[in-house]
Amino acid sequence: MQSSDLLRDVVIGMSDGLTVPFALAAGLSGVVDSNAIIVIAGIAEIAAGSIAMGLGGYLAGKTELDHYKSELKREYDEVESVPEREKQEVRDFFKDIGLSKEVQEKATQEISQDKKRWVDFMMKYELGLDEPDSKRATKSALNIGLSYVAGGIIPLSPYMFLSDPATALKISVAATLLCLFVFGYFKSKVTGVSPIGGALKVTLIGALAAGAAFGVASLFE
Amino acid sequence: MQSSDLLRDVVIGMSDGLTVPFALAAGLSGVVDSNAIIVIAGIAEIAAGSIAMGLGGYLAGKTELDHYKSELKREYDEVESVPEREKQEVRDFFKDIGLSKEVQEKATQEISQDKKRWVDFMMKYELGLDEPDSKRATKSALNIGLSYVAGGIIPLSPYMFLSDPATALKISVAATLLCLFVFGYFKSKVTGVSPIGGALKVTLIGALAAGAAFGVASLFE
Repeated sequence: MQSSDLLRDVVIGMSDGLTVPFALAAGLSGVVDSNAIIVIAGIAEIAAGSIAMGLGGYLAGKTELDHYKSELKREYDEVESVPEREKQEVRDFFKDIGLSKEVQEKATQEISQDKKRWVDFMMKYELGLDEPDSKRATKSALNIGLSYVAGGIIPLSPYMFLSDPATALKISVAATLLCLFVFGYFKSKVTGVSPIGGALKVTLIGALAAGAAFGVASLFE
Repeated sequence: MQSSDLLRDVVIGMSDGLTVPFALAAGLSGVVDSNAIIVIAGIAEIAAGSIAMGLGGYLAGKTELDHYKSELKREYDEVESVPEREKQEVRDFFKDIGLSKEVQEKATQEISQDKKRWVDFMMKYELGLDEPDSKRATKSALNIGLSYVAGGIIPLSPYMFLSDPATALKISVAATLLCLFVFGYFKSKVTGVSPIGGALKVTLIGALAAGAAFGVASLFE
């Protein structure tokens, strides 16, 4: 699981990093005549996007942990203060999955004999909450943020090394669509769907985003 | 649930839409002397970001549905071809939640009597998969994309109506941080965490993203 978590983070960050800075640079390439401005705008976007994604993900992880802890406390309070109602909720779970009245009753009695077991059961199956791994959230946020930066540098590179926006745009389009295809392929492999279909979808989103950015930038020129 | 789903989408799209175009515009305001370029870059970013977020969300929803369907098919095949192994997995579930051997056995027999009940149980509790609502995914993607656009217009407006980047930046910072605070407040209410704390976090991410964009843009000038 460890290495597939990392792969997942890298792919998420990198495919977004490839898409938005790519589209922004493409959009600007139609309306400004200096690659310097495109590079500066792209770098500003990468800084903003990676922080929003990375730090946003980190804080979302912390929030999830706080939410888990407050719900855990509430469940411990409830099995103490309204045990009959909580037992009924356990019984309802076993009823919903299709067990007979007799087995519902026995299972409920066994679960509610041990307070920790009871609360763990309620957290997971009544509320659908797994204990979040807060270290994982931090690492994941960092991986996603850094992958966004790495992804964003690819579409910007041609603008850094060439002086003409139109030429840089062509190379950026070719390089980025290729990378989007490759990352879409791995992304789909990780999530277990058809790799070629997924790769085409990811590439299509990038192309549409870049086309739209180019279109609206030209309109507003 | 309906209206809170909409609220959730609006808040997600809008807080990201407020953050990234805001930071990009702030970053550019330090290095270009024309608001026209800032507005064009901002609009290109909004087009790119809303498509990446909206269409990306839509395709993620479709992928989730495909994944669910392929797992469902696999489970139906497995209860047919390896029923004993599948029964053992049901038994393991009841063992893990702390039931006695006797109740494990009875519950497993009852669940596996009905093939649909059995597969539904495996999908939900072995694999942790709920049937995704594909209509909801489409609507949600559209709501998030449009909210990104609505959010992005707020930080850009001052650059549209003023000619001096430095003045526009000040108004943009004040207006956007205020909006981020308000949206952070509602976002936290929806997710059930402390509203003031959450509002401060969302505002802080926006301020850090804008500060970083301004910093790196100045460095690369």
